[in-house]
Amino acid sequence: MKKLINVTDQVLTESLSGFVSAHADLLELGAEGKFVRRKQIKPGKPVLISGGGSGHEPLHGGFVGHGMLDAACPGQVFTSPTPDQMLEAMQATESGGGVLLIVKNYEGDVMNFEMAAEMAECEVATVLTDDDVAVETSTYSTGRRGVAGTMIVEKIVGAAAETGRDLAALKALGDRVNQQTRSMGVALTSCTVPAAGSPTFQIGENEMEMGVGIHGEPGRKRVALAEAKDIAAEMIGAIRKDFGDQAKGNAITLVNGFGGTPLMELYLMHHCVEQELVRSGITIARSLVGNFVTSLEMAGCSVTLSMVDDELLGLWDAPVHTAGLRWGM
Amino acid sequence: MKKLINVTDQVLTESLSGFVSAHADLLELGAEGKFVRRKQIKPGKPVLISGGGSGHEPLHGGFVGHGMLDAACPGQVFTSPTPDQMLEAMQATESGGGVLLIVKNYEGDVMNFEMAAEMAECEVATVLTDDDVAVETSTYSTGRRGVAGTMIVEKIVGAAAETGRDLAALKALGDRVNQQTRSMGVALTSCTVPAAGSPTFQIGENEMEMGVGIHGEPGRKRVALAEAKDIAAEMIGAIRKDFGDQAKGNAITLVNGFGGTPLMELYLMHHCVEQELVRSGITIARSLVGNFVTSLEMAGCSVTLSMVDDELLGLWDAPVHTAGLRWGM
Repeated sequence: MKKLINVTDQVLTESLSGFVSAHADLLELGAEGKFVRRKQIKPGKPVLISGGGSGHEPLHGGFVGHGMLDAACPGQVFTSPTPDQMLEAMQATESGGGVLLIVKNYEGDVMNFEMAAEMAECEVATVLTDDDVAVETSTYSTGRRGVAGTMIVEKIVGAAAETGRDLAALKALGDRVNQQTRSMGVALTSCTVPAAGSPTFQIGENEMEMGVGIHGEPGRKRVALAEAKDIAAEMIGAIRKDFGDQAKGNAITLVNGFGGTPLMELYLMHHCVEQELVRSGITIARSLVGNFVTSLEMAGCSVTLSMVDDELLGLWDAPVHTAGLRWGM
Repeated sequence: MKKLINVTDQVLTESLSGFVSAHADLLELGAEGKFVRRKQIKPGKPVLISGGGSGHEPLHGGFVGHGMLDAACPGQVFTSPTPDQMLEAMQATESGGGVLLIVKNYEGDVMNFEMAAEMAECEVATVLTDDDVAVETSTYSTGRRGVAGTMIVEKIVGAAAETGRDLAALKALGDRVNQQTRSMGVALTSCTVPAAGSPTFQIGENEMEMGVGIHGEPGRKRVALAEAKDIAAEMIGAIRKDFGDQAKGNAITLVNGFGGTPLMELYLMHHCVEQELVRSGITIARSLVGNFVTSLEMAGCSVTLSMVDDELLGLWDAPVHTAGLRWGM
């Protein structure tokens, strides 16, 4: 295992310390590093809280700030945060508007966020994201996994929260964005969880895992490495098929790197996605290319399509100021 | 070689196509992909042009836009762009204010930018960056290499160019920032140039290359992989020693990933850099953590310190809108 770390059991603590310090204008760390929160939250605004295992940075801590999340709870690498983390994040940030939890559909996350919601003394609603079309159930999930599309939900709902919408409206909006968002990923290499010390899975020199999850969990099939255009065609094909009649009109596309793939290749993949969408009836209204929902140093990427109307596009374009996504301010 | 590509000789063309398309609000591609330019440039403003081999993305194309570069010339991977690329970029963007070339100190780049400057019919000045303290000469350079500090020069000089300073003032400013900026890098793995098809260098499972260049060229020594805090101490120590009496006051710190290291580790390195600078007489006034000047998928990072006064800090903070760096707009 080759990593820029000190002792394995301090990786999260030291990384969070550096993260919050590098963004001290925006962020504060909760006691014992249980959560990362915005410094400034408008009183009465419903607060948006997410979280999950670490190792997917910038998700979720990197999306805390104006126009996105109010707090994020980081678990150990690829491990759900605990209910007390979530509860403390809620108690520290909620001020009468209630809490919207945005939860990726993994069993540990779902269970722990549910327990926290039950313990909370404020109003709590949950948006469960499950945008991954690759498999119906997976190693750590019952039902589809929540992957890179989660950041699109966080961005759009976060923008709406700044405009004064109430908790019920935000919950409905989040569910709608999730339903209109689909992703699929491919891995070329494994990642290595620091505490494990060895690669999560073995993969041959000429193989790829099509439909991989963001923890390296298996996808649809292990096949020979293909050209980027054929990979894009397969992912877009799976997403369009899953969308059915919804696959038309304006979309936000996200070509998301898993952490170990150069930006040069991600832009090449974006080019292939564009070529694939020509004559599909889908127009790329906005696009995002980069490492946003990662799996440590895994090589590979996911492609997400989020179908949007003018309202959602407006919310996408609204100013955002977080460590991992920033525009308009 | 595992990469998200189609045919090897189209990697740059297809990647550029995706890049410019993803940022079509900001950027245009010159004929035959010879350069990337800003759509809007204020007439009469000195234009800032950089370039170099590809594979370092977002540098340089990702730093074209308001408050930074006006054009960038991408060579093939780790290969200098040609003089005609630079000449055409100058002709397409210059409008009476002259051209400032920002050139990383590599022999191929220096030679080709010099040839282009000689052919140009407008006023041309050059800032040569050589911030890498690791070695005095290297595989591809006579004198120190220009590495991640180059982006700090581009940001600060780009901000100044927006305020109406003339070419001579910008050249002097760029030279000053370069002189106040020092970097050092470490590699944990090699990168693989697509056209070569195999790793640039071999490195053992428990080794690191201390002082590596951004093309994987050798640094100071090949040693056993150390803890992050010891790596940070060695890099900061080398930089401080090189600064001598200059090593005091406010600094911008840049912990720059080479492409294959997770963000989680880069923030951990930032934490170690902070710890190392406590009681050093150097105060971190601003910090930046992420993948900005990469070496394809190489694992590792560099640390840069740029000593700044209030003027330089103000220029650093000024709005910037590029694909790779954006704030304030």
